[in-house]
This record gives sequence, structure tokens and C-alpha cells, in this order.
Amino acid sequence: MLKNNIETFMACDKEYDESKIILFGAPFDSTTSFRPGTRFGPAAIRSESFGIETYSPYQNKDLEDTFVMDSGDLELRIGDTDAVLDQIHERAEIILNDGKIPFMIGGEHLVTLGAFRAAAEQYPDIHIVHFDAHADLRDDYLGVKNSHACVLRRCWDIIGDDRIHQFGIRSGERAEFEFAKTHTDMHPFGLEDVNRFVKDMDKSKPVYLTVDLDVLDPSVFPGTGTPEPGGVSFDELRRAVTAVCSALNIVACDLNELSPHYDHSGISTAAACKVIREILLALF
Amino acid sequence: MLKNNIETFMACDKEYDESKIILFGAPFDSTTSFRPGTRFGPAAIRSESFGIETYSPYQNKDLEDTFVMDSGDLELRIGDTDAVLDQIHERAEIILNDGKIPFMIGGEHLVTLGAFRAAAEQYPDIHIVHFDAHADLRDDYLGVKNSHACVLRRCWDIIGDDRIHQFGIRSGERAEFEFAKTHTDMHPFGLEDVNRFVKDMDKSKPVYLTVDLDVLDPSVFPGTGTPEPGGVSFDELRRAVTAVCSALNIVACDLNELSPHYDHSGISTAAACKVIREILLALF
Amino acid sequence: MLKNNIETFMACDKEYDESKIILFGAPFDSTTSFRPGTRFGPAAIRSESFGIETYSPYQNKDLEDTFVMDSGDLELRIGDTDAVLDQIHERAEIILNDGKIPFMIGGEHLVTLGAFRAAAEQYPDIHIVHFDAHADLRDDYLGVKNSHACVLRRCWDIIGDDRIHQFGIRSGERAEFEFAKTHTDMHPFGLEDVNRFVKDMDKSKPVYLTVDLDVLDPSVFPGTGTPEPGGVSFDELRRAVTAVCSALNIVACDLNELSPHYDHSGISTAAACKVIREILLALF
Amino acid sequence: MLKNNIETFMACDKEYDESKIILFGAPFDSTTSFRPGTRFGPAAIRSESFGIETYSPYQNKDLEDTFVMDSGDLELRIGDTDAVLDQIHERAEIILNDGKIPFMIGGEHLVTLGAFRAAAEQYPDIHIVHFDAHADLRDDYLGVKNSHACVLRRCWDIIGDDRIHQFGIRSGERAEFEFAKTHTDMHPFGLEDVNRFVKDMDKSKPVYLTVDLDVLDPSVFPGTGTPEPGGVSFDELRRAVTAVCSALNIVACDLNELSPHYDHSGISTAAACKVIREILLALF
Amino acid sequence: MLKNNIETFMACDKEYDESKIILFGAPFDSTTSFRPGTRFGPAAIRSESFGIETYSPYQNKDLEDTFVMDSGDLELRIGDTDAVLDQIHERAEIILNDGKIPFMIGGEHLVTLGAFRAAAEQYPDIHIVHFDAHADLRDDYLGVKNSHACVLRRCWDIIGDDRIHQFGIRSGERAEFEFAKTHTDMHPFGLEDVNRFVKDMDKSKPVYLTVDLDVLDPSVFPGTGTPEPGGVSFDELRRAVTAVCSALNIVACDLNELSPHYDHSGISTAAACKVIREILLALF
Amino acid sequence: MLKNNIETFMACDKEYDESKIILFGAPFDSTTSFRPGTRFGPAAIRSESFGIETYSPYQNKDLEDTFVMDSGDLELRIGDTDAVLDQIHERAEIILNDGKIPFMIGGEHLVTLGAFRAAAEQYPDIHIVHFDAHADLRDDYLGVKNSHACVLRRCWDIIGDDRIHQFGIRSGERAEFEFAKTHTDMHPFGLEDVNRFVKDMDKSKPVYLTVDLDVLDPSVFPGTGTPEPGGVSFDELRRAVTAVCSALNIVACDLNELSPHYDHSGISTAAACKVIREILLALF
Repeated sequence: MLKNNIETFMACDKEYDESKIILFGAPFDSTTSFRPGTRFGPAAIRSESFGIETYSPYQNKDLEDTFVMDSGDLELRIGDTDAVLDQIHERAEIILNDGKIPFMIGGEHLVTLGAFRAAAEQYPDIHIVHFDAHADLRDDYLGVKNSHACVLRRCWDIIGDDRIHQFGIRSGERAEFEFAKTHTDMHPFGLEDVNRFVKDMDKSKPVYLTVDLDVLDPSVFPGTGTPEPGGVSFDELRRAVTAVCSALNIVACDLNELSPHYDHSGISTAAACKVIREILLALF
Repeated sequence: MLKNNIETFMACDKEYDESKIILFGAPFDSTTSFRPGTRFGPAAIRSESFGIETYSPYQNKDLEDTFVMDSGDLELRIGDTDAVLDQIHERAEIILNDGKIPFMIGGEHLVTLGAFRAAAEQYPDIHIVHFDAHADLRDDYLGVKNSHACVLRRCWDIIGDDRIHQFGIRSGERAEFEFAKTHTDMHPFGLEDVNRFVKDMDKSKPVYLTVDLDVLDPSVFPGTGTPEPGGVSFDELRRAVTAVCSALNIVACDLNELSPHYDHSGISTAAACKVIREILLALF
Repeated sequence: MLKNNIETFMACDKEYDESKIILFGAPFDSTTSFRPGTRFGPAAIRSESFGIETYSPYQNKDLEDTFVMDSGDLELRIGDTDAVLDQIHERAEIILNDGKIPFMIGGEHLVTLGAFRAAAEQYPDIHIVHFDAHADLRDDYLGVKNSHACVLRRCWDIIGDDRIHQFGIRSGERAEFEFAKTHTDMHPFGLEDVNRFVKDMDKSKPVYLTVDLDVLDPSVFPGTGTPEPGGVSFDELRRAVTAVCSALNIVACDLNELSPHYDHSGISTAAACKVIREILLALF
Repeated sequence: MLKNNIETFMACDKEYDESKIILFGAPFDSTTSFRPGTRFGPAAIRSESFGIETYSPYQNKDLEDTFVMDSGDLELRIGDTDAVLDQIHERAEIILNDGKIPFMIGGEHLVTLGAFRAAAEQYPDIHIVHFDAHADLRDDYLGVKNSHACVLRRCWDIIGDDRIHQFGIRSGERAEFEFAKTHTDMHPFGLEDVNRFVKDMDKSKPVYLTVDLDVLDPSVFPGTGTPEPGGVSFDELRRAVTAVCSALNIVACDLNELSPHYDHSGISTAAACKVIREILLALF
Repeated sequence: MLKNNIETFMACDKEYDESKIILFGAPFDSTTSFRPGTRFGPAAIRSESFGIETYSPYQNKDLEDTFVMDSGDLELRIGDTDAVLDQIHERAEIILNDGKIPFMIGGEHLVTLGAFRAAAEQYPDIHIVHFDAHADLRDDYLGVKNSHACVLRRCWDIIGDDRIHQFGIRSGERAEFEFAKTHTDMHPFGLEDVNRFVKDMDKSKPVYLTVDLDVLDPSVFPGTGTPEPGGVSFDELRRAVTAVCSALNIVACDLNELSPHYDHSGISTAAACKVIREILLALF
Repeated sequence: MLKNNIETFMACDKEYDESKIILFGAPFDSTTSFRPGTRFGPAAIRSESFGIETYSPYQNKDLEDTFVMDSGDLELRIGDTDAVLDQIHERAEIILNDGKIPFMIGGEHLVTLGAFRAAAEQYPDIHIVHFDAHADLRDDYLGVKNSHACVLRRCWDIIGDDRIHQFGIRSGERAEFEFAKTHTDMHPFGLEDVNRFVKDMDKSKPVYLTVDLDVLDPSVFPGTGTPEPGGVSFDELRRAVTAVCSALNIVACDLNELSPHYDHSGISTAAACKVIREILLALF
């Protein structure tokens, strides 16, 4: 009898019970203010993942040796932002309750809020490590509070000062950079400070890692809604996420803002796949 | 002293007071269920309009001889659907109150709801003429009521049976086609019935015209979110809108669902521009 | 516990045992002489199928009411044509042996040869109904016998004269058209003859249906390796396959030559999805 | 010793002396008012021609049996329009003086003026058969006389009234259509009148055929600078050029306005290649 | 009463009288020798500018606090190069006469000649700072003197030796590099020498800044007519223009060679927008 | 009499007898496991080469002063891998027998095997210098031995240990990296070791240079089948190939894996052209 040849992120085809990490897609982009399309990110990552290897020569580890389940995409109620955040919250909560790490693939950055709420409930002393081109610290965007441009501000509403560690930020309103001075731990422009941060950070603290891939230079990652020239290289990001995931206590993470239709060459999706691979391997 | 060389839809550069028709863009696509991007429709239409002529050999009329103001795009509160519909409502209401015809360029089809509410308040006995590939008669879409897939159903909520005249419909759920049998005047698949409809229609009735450009075959109009093979030709749609706008009492209209990023050749935008030109000329 | 949200062709998620038709992808394009890329056809069809409805207003039937399993893609030994044909043969044979209809999605047209061999073994008196822009009757192509340009000739090697019914053919060498005069039942250029053929055809004969989508005009179906201007419209093909599948005894079928990377608008994939939907519904 | 494997238009690799028709490219687009890029037309046509067959089942003739030389592209002095027209004039003159038919591949439509000057010198009683979406009858375009938008008007300056036969025209200023009423033989919108025209035309008159491929509908031919929805189908144009070239005394011809970068699918180039093939075969 | 929602470069919506800098577009590309399309540069920059912030964290300044008017695009006489240069000359002259800084957005690099003539008349001791991949020092290009490939040579005709400071040059004929040795101040390949040059340069001298964006590496700026691998990064160019504009006496400037149709991802336009923003902020 | 204006790689239009280096294209991609299309590489390189200069300011040399013949593309028997390798073998052998350097342009990397066999027969003590992102050391790929993923392993079958020098490798199976440890001279990730290698290498040894352009970072070279983020810059590769070709005894070389359809901007083809130019100049 024939079995379905299921398409998952490469090698992430373990059963739920045996898995330590659970991937899921959150194909949502309704609050995107400039160019939408990140809803196609998770599917593109899944199907293009077959173009790269499961083995990482950087870490000398292989995804075939890990225990990860890709549970596919959520079916989100497009057009109702609050309902969508609840759906994400619920999925992350289930995974966290089962003692596993949820790894969400966006989607626009707002999806982080749903998963982070679940993580903060489970781990009240949680910190956030945030890689991004944009500060995402607006209080509202044209009057809308639950917007991708406000997502870290909404997280701050939950956990308050000095718990959000931001790297690579090179764009925002003046008010966001002012806000960051007193409320977050912002390291603008590059990733030079990541190693020192990892060294100094309390290793026992639970950490939520959120990677907005537009922290990469648009030359490396053109497939995104709001390209910001002047970003970091792939190797810089690869080294940073590896350092963070190897040393800190990551309890949940996400990666977002791939908008594949803006990059017909597919190099953005390839970059996303490799960052995911390196994160997964570093977590094992 | 230098004056700004303002970009409007070609030749639609009259002053508000002297204009009979007021164009405005509604760059919104947050409830789009498949491929977003119609928010870029109005801007693309405006800048590509310079590739076509102001004169129509079909009607032997010239836009230079008409009185139309293009008032640019609304700044919509992306992410808050209800607020967006209110913004559109308000704009259409102002124009209607001044005795002018609002001509809205979408955006996804849901934007029709905002403008139609204003028109139905002003003209309680209003009818709708609807060109589309999709029935848009769902009661909800994944639980969301104000969705592009439900927009004609929401209009029906306002005006009831036998006032919505649908042409070209070739896609929908079974339930939508069932609903249409008893509640709307649906002419599926082609536009063959338009001339007879125009002849039979009471010419005194106020009419809201809504054109979802995906009624066109995808070969003619590939730049849209949900292409539906099997549509009508450009000349069929051109003749149909000319017939409707020449003979009936159009009090408001819109045209929507151009998603220009899906068509690098620009033929979809050119088609949209020519349909707008023919409608405007037929209204004079 | 979480279940994987498997991606299949829309609504084709039944179990193998209960299914009458089994879909599978054959992502192979190694003998393509001009522009390769059809290997991405099955995956594109699967993921884009969510942009169209399961219900067909043409036939007033719904895929939700059918019994079809999409068993995913074969993992083919790219680079070894004979091995690939064997893999396809084996898959089709299993399905046929279980009394079900194999529905293969290519890939280039050569994949037909693998599945047809299995069908001809099971049904020695089988006929072929062939929709295509190209005759595919060369004896060899630059010395290669198992080439996409020779696939119907290879089928003729198996079943001989007057069993291959070709429609829409508008391209080939002079020798192919000469060959057709005495060996196949060719109806060049359009699909006008399909209805008469269906009427006259012995309804008890087993039929293999093979649809090369480039029979469609390139305006409707630009995403293919060898576009041939002057083809048929979507509605012409839709009506033809519906007629064939409703009236004749289809025992196996395939559809091929979608090369999605050549069509960024996605209209080709949408057309492929709708043709598949109409075939599936007509078979029930 | 190795010989260079020269790239020519398919099968047009005869020696100059034995050839009846000489192809050459005129890669010029400097007066294009909207979207440039037709300079890449001839090269695209040459390399994509290998995707189509040399045999035409429509005419049952094969390019392999004809005598045509493709002499490659002119090296034009981009930026100096008058010099470019002189270069084209000179090339056409040489070919005409040798009793051969020049077949120029543009480039923008202005290139016609250079070749037509040479033809009108050789054949003072020459007529023009003109397929186009645009009238091209402006006296000037923003003050520029030698513009693509004026090319037929410049030809009229040379040969005067009733010698220019225009088909398929569906775009222009009002003044151009007025001009046509008294000065040219214009058949707007479609090609229905071509057969009658061919029948009535004096067969002894020398004819210059100029095909602006944007006469085709943009769905068939999206790769052009100024797409005009509402055009003719490939088969309509194919039949028209075959009729003209089979029956009339064609002494020179050109085909222009392919802008390949606007059509990533390549269907426009394929259409151009097939039109050239059909013209060449009809001329033999 | 409704006011038009004018599209300008972001935040450059001041009145002419109050503005210090006047932006204008020069959409011209007729002498482009390879791939045209820069005529679409200014419009693309204007509409995509809404994807970036008005605030620069690099300089801690905000465009909202500056006085800049974007006066839209010139309507140029495409096809008549000399007339086009005169139109540009006239526009720059008006702005300079009013004591303001003209900031022209090309278009191809030849447009610099028109604006530079006006600036050199006003400021006879003017210098040029030139960022580019190409030397642009040919005396003629295929016999044409006023070509984009000759533009700095034409400027040298006006101001002579040692007044043109060239940075980033990595492409040209041997003769151009020879010419540069004795006539210009060329710093090939990178931008390492900019800071020293700025330090040493006489601060009282009037300076015309011309930025050919292809000085950037094609990975950062693929949307250009003649991509030259081996260029500088965005941050290198950003720092260089900031240094030049902050320290020197810029009296006029331009930025050119964005050809947006060659980059569907939009990263080139985003880079152009940010370079303009940084220049504008550094000039205040 | 007219002469054909042949399209060759720029300035490589010498006669065979006078040439030291013979270019030829091998447009083959049938074993490509992910995204095919490299068959279009040689043609793209040839036509886009006119966008770059023949003069290199890096080396201060000009292609006009060299003796290179571009002999066009081989007509390969697509679909029969062994026959294709034989055709390539034969072409390389002829050139080598005439004492010239064959310079093959792929195509996928497997084409190297055909040319290398000829070179190894002529020069039994030959070494390979290999630039690539991928190790290409698999013993088989899904059971296929002659696959692009195995090409260096097949070369190793011929020449054995310590004769293959690999640079830039950043992707492969664990088994390939294990194999490299004992059998090849692998320098993973970057090109830092090239200069030392060149210095240490025996200058009398014959060397086959094979450049898989995907060694470049995908930002620089997106137009390839299997983009691998984390690669080298254009200047790094340019310096490396210049060092190798200037100092070592290159007897044959190739460059491959450009898949131009994946990069509409053309920057990949421009990079390929410049690498070829720099190699050719360094060999003189």
C-alpha cells in the first residue's frame, strides 16, 4: 500500500512524541505596511529546503541525527489579526506544555507576539534576543497597535525593561531609538557585540530568539517586504545565531519576514533554510 | 517659480469644484486569502497610464475633454479592517454629498463595501452591477465576515434580493451558486447577457458599478491575486462596461484586484488603465 | 498531540484503500531539448491548488465528494532515463493492479512512456487520447530514442497503428506529419473534432489520456518549455477533457509540461490545477 | 580544424550570393517614448528560434528548403538618430541593389524609415502594408519628427496619399485618426479586411510590408514597449501575413517592437519567430 | 474640499520658496549603449521611498526637519539629445539663480552634462566629485560625443585638468585610464581615499557631486544598465557621500543610473532612496 | 558582399590556427538534481559579454591583444549522458592535440569530466584546481555515478590522491568531507589559502582549472541552480583565478554552473564574463 510522500522541512520528519523541537508555519502578513507576501515564506522554505544539505560543515553536525518534527502550517483566519494571534498562541502553548521547543516560521514579524505570549506565560523571567534591521518599537502604526512595526514594543509591554536584546537595528523612527536608550538593550547596525553579550548573559535565563531575516543585507536576502541596505552578511548572522543557540537557554524561537515572490532567484529562501538548519543544529 | 509636476491618472488633473467624477485609490489588501499585493494597484495604474492615449477610437472621445479629478490614494490604517472601511466610507460620502461620482480604484474587492455603504445611504433604491470571476457571496471566510470573498454578500445584507446583477462569475463554493439562485441576478461564465440586461433595466434606478478585473481571462490580466482561467476577453469587457455606463444611471463605481507585482510585463496594468478610460468616457 | 498538516492537491487527501484515483508526481525533465524546469510542475500544482475552489460550476460537482489520494512525488534517479522510466512503470503498475486509476503529473512528456507501459500490459487493447501542440512522433532526437520528442512514437512501438488519437497538434518535423498520415489518428491545430471522436469511439475500449498542457495557447499557459503560439483556449481544452473523461473508459491518465519558473504570474499553474480538477470530476 | 558554430535565425545560414532574402537586425530604441528595450529584439529572436521547428504544418513548407541569409545585427550609432537611419538605409540599399529582399528585424518602429527610404528610391510606386496597434501618424512627438510615433507619417511624406494600407490600428491621437481618413487606407481594430484588400490590390505593385508586433493582443505578445489590450490573435496575424506575402509583390519587409526583457516567459519571442518563419515561407 | 495627495520623494513636500534643495527627475536614457531603462529611475525612487524611514540613525537627523521640494519630473524631448540637455540646463539654472541647490535624479549619466553646464556657468571654479564604476572619459562612443560613456570627458572640456575627482572606477577602455593619469584625479577600484581627499580639499571651492550608483557592487545594486562586479558596499558609499556632503561646499548634485525594471526585488531602488536621504541630511 | 556579423565572446574572434586558447560551450544540464538551466549559460555569456570592456584595469591588459577563438557551442545529445561526455572529450582532445588550451563554458559541472578525461590522457601527471561551493565528491547520487554531484570523485577515480586542490567548499554530505580528509587537498569555506598554495605548487605540473561559479556568494551570483549562502566576493575570486592562471601551468580549464534564467538582473552573467576575461588575460 502506498504511503504519502509528505513534504516537510528537510529531515524534520520525526514523530511528535520523539521530537525536541516542533516547527510550524504562521503564514500571516495582514499588517504589513509596505510589501506583503511573507505568508508564502513557510511553504517556500519547506520546498526549497531540498536544495541544501542536511549536514553542516560549519558545526560538523547533521539534521538526520536530530529530533525535529515539521508540523506544517497553521490555517489562520486572515483578516482578523486578534484571532490569528490567538491561534498562534494556542499552538505554541501546546508545544511548550509538552516540554518541547516551538520553532515558528513566519509570516510577518507580528506573529512573534502570539508565540511570545505563550512563552512568557510559561517562563515569566524570559528574555528576548532579537535580530532585525528594524527596531519594531513603535507604540502604534497609523493608529494600529498590533502591527509588525510595533511587535517588540508589545513584547516589552509584557516583560518590561532590560529584557530585550536587539542586534543589527539600522532603521526606525527617532522615537524608537530614543525609547531603546532607556528600555531595551539595543546594539545598532552590526552584530559585533553578540559574542560579548552571549558571554555575559546569565545562562540559566530562558530566552526567546526572534530572527527577522531582513537583518541580512538585501544583497543576501532581497526577498523581503522592506529591504534595508547596509545589513550584515550571511556568515555574520550564521555565527551569531550559532553562538546564541549553543550557549543560551533557548526555550522558543522564530524566524520571519521571508517574502519569496520578491526574489525569483531563490537565494533568499536558500539563506533562510541555512539559518534554520544552523539554529536547529546548534540547539542539539 | 517652479510648480510641482503632479502625477495623476492621465488627464485627470481638473480641480475638485469643476469635476464631475472624483478618482481615489484604496490601497488595501489585508483580507486577501491567497496572494496579496493589490495595494499597489492604484499607484501602478496612475504611473502606467502614461503609456496609453487619452483618446478612444472606440468611442471617439478624449479624456482631455472631460472633467475628472484624481485625488490620489487614501492613507489607510492597514491592519484594522473596520477602520479602513470607515475611511473609505467617509471619502465616498463627501464626494456623493457634493453631487459628484466617486470612482474608487482598489485594492482588494472588500473596499467596495466601504464605498457602497455611502452610496446606499444616499440612494436607498440602488442596484449593483458586478463583473467578476468570483461570486463573492460567502457568508464568512474562515470565520471572518468582512472578507473580500464575502463582499457582495455584505452588500446584499444592505439591499436584499434582486438588486445585485452579476456577470462573468465562474468560481465559488456550491453554496454561493445556490444562494445566487434565489437572491441575486447571476449570469455565470460570460458577458453575453449584458446587452439584454442593459436594455431591460429601469434607466432611472441608481446603479453602483463594481468591476473586479479578474473577470478578464488570466491571459489578458495575469496580475491578480486569484487568477481564474476561462474568463472574458478585453473587448468583451470593454463593450460591456461601455454599454452599462452609457445607458444606466451610474452614481458610483469602482474597479479593483490589480496586483501589479505578479505581472512584470505590465499588460494587466495597461488593461486596467484602458478599462478606466473607457468607463470615464462612457460616463460623459 | 499534533498531526502533520500534509500538503496535497486540494481535497485529494483520502486514504489509499478508499480511493478510486491515485495522483502522483513524476518530477523529471532530463531529456527536455529546449528549456527544462518541468520537474517543478507537480510541486507547484500542489501548492497553488489552494488558490482555486474544489467546486466546479461547469460540472456542478465538488472534489470534496470524490475519492482521490495524492500520494506525493516519486524520488526519481535524475540522470538515468531508463531507471526513471522503470520507477514510473512500477508505481503505475501497483495502482493499476489494485484496480485504481493512476493519474500522473509530469514532468516532461517522456514520463508518459513509463506509465503507459504499465497500462498497456494491463490493457492490451488500450487506445491513447493525446492533447498536445507537438506531434512527439520522431523516431529519435539527436540520436536519443527515449526523448520527450519521441514519446508517442515509443507508445506506437507498443500498440501500433490507429490506436493513437491526437488533437491540437500544430508543430513537428515534416516527417512526423507524414508518419501520422498512415499510423495515427491525427486532428491537427484545434479541438473541433473531439466531440465527434468521442461519439464514434467504442466506449468499451480502455483509454489512456495524456494531456500535454502546451496544447493551450501560450497566452493561457506561458509556463512551459516550448511555447507554441496558435493554441487552444482554456475553455476549449476544458470542454474536450470533460467530454473524453465523461464518456470514455479512462483507465489511466497524465498531465504534463508545466514549467512553473517560466511564469511568475502563476496563471499557468492555475490553468493546470483547473484542468486536473475538471478531469477528476469528470471521472466520477 | 574547428569551424565556428555561428548562431543565425534557424536554418537561415545560406551564403549571400545564393540567397533571395537577407535578414538583418536593427537594434535601436532611442526614440521609444514609454518603455525601451526593443534593441534586444533581434538577438532574442535569433537565439530563441531554436525552440521552434523549421517546418510549418500550416503551409506545408520547410525553411531548410529556402534560401535565406541571416547577416546578423548592424552596429548602430546609438544616440544619433539620423546617423542610425542612414546606416539602415545603406544596408537595405545594398541588398535591394543586389536584387534581393531585405528583411529587417527591429528595434523600435522608427527603423522602418531607414529601410523604407531605400525601397522607395528603388521602387517609386511602392505601397506599404502596415500591421500595428498604433497609427504612428503623428507629425511630431514632443517636437521630435523622427520618432517611432511618427514613422508612418514620415513614410507618407515620401509617397503621399492612398499608398499606406493600415490594419489592426486601435490606438492614437484623435488627429491621427482624422489624418487617416483622408490620407491613408486605414482598417481599424481587426484584420477582417485583409483578404478583400489582398484580392483587390494590384498584384504588380511593389509592396513594403511592416509588421509592428504589438498588433497582437498583449496576452499573446506581452514583450513590447506599449502593450495595447484588444489586439488580434496569433492565428489572425499568421493568416494575414501569409495572405499578403503569398499574393502580393513584397520587395522589402520588416518586423519590429519585440522588447524581450518585459516577457520572462519567452512567449513573445516565440510568437515573433513563428511570424518570421511564416513570412519567409510565404515569400518562397 | 479635497486636496490632491501628491506623491513626492518622502517628506520632500516643502514649498519652493522655503526650500534650500530642489529635487527634480530627468527621465532620459537614449544614449545608453547596453541596457536602457533608467528613465524609470526617478518615478521608482519616488514611489518606493515610502518603504524607508525619514529618520537616519547614522546621522541622527530626520528629513521631516529639512527644507526640500521635490518638483517632479521634467518632460523631456526623448529622441533629441541636445534639446534634452538644454531642458535640464534650464531647470538647473533657474534653481541655481534662486540660490538653491539643484538635486537631479537620472536617468542615464549623460543628464549630468546639462546640469553641470548650468553649475559651471554660475561657479567657474567648480570641481566635480564623481562616484562611478566607469570612467566615462571616452572622447566619443561609436562616433557620438554626447553619450553617457563620455559625460565626464564633456565636463572636462569645460573645466579642464585636475578639477574632476573620481572614485571607485573599475571599468573603461585603456585610453580612458591613460587620459585620467594626466587630466583627472582618479582613485580607482574603492573608496579608501575619500576621507583623505575630503580632508585635503579646499573647503571654499564649489563642488558638483555626481553619483553613478553603479559604483555599488551589483549584489547591492543589480538594477542598472551595465552592472560591474567588484564594487563597493552600501556602507562604504553611504560613508563617502556623507563625508563629502558634510564637509565640502556642494552647490549642485545628481544621482543616476537606477534602471528599476532589471531588479524585481526592489533592493536597488531602496539603496538609491537611502543614498538620497543620507545626502540630503548631510547637506543640512 | 555582406559578411555575417558573428556573435562570439567579446574580442574572441581570432582564427583557429593563430589562437592559443579555444573557447567552446557545453550546454548540458541533465543530471542537475535541483534547478536545471545551465544549458543556457554559454549563450548568455556570449551575448552579455558586450556589456563589459575588453580592457582590464586590474591587470592592465586587453583582450584585443590576445589570441582566442570562440568556437561556439557543441550540439549535445541531451538525454544520453555518456554520449555527451564523449562529445566533450572529443572536442577537448582535438584542441589539446593541436597544442592549444581548451576553455569550456558549461553547463552543469559534470561536463568537466569529459574535458578532464582528454586532459588527463594528454598529461598523466595533471593536477586539478577546483573552486566551488560544493565538494562534488559523492560516489553516487541516488544511484547515478555520472552526476554533477560526483564529478570530482570521478576525476579522483582517474588521478587518485593528493592531486585535487579544492577551495571555497562549504557544502556537502558528511561523507564527502570525510573523504576529502584523506584523498584531496581541501581548503573549505574561503580562498585565504590560495596564494600560499600557488607559491608552494610545483610550477612545472600541468594543471586543469575548474571554476564552479557558485563558489561566489549568491548575492554576487544568484543565477545558479543550487545557491549556497556564505560564499566569496567577486574580488576574492578574481584575485584567486588571476594568481592561479598567472603562476601555474594551466593546460585546460572550464567555468560552469551559470543558470541565467534564475537571475533577471543579469549580474550573474556579468560576473561570469568578467571572471572569464580575467582568466584569459592572466593566461597571456
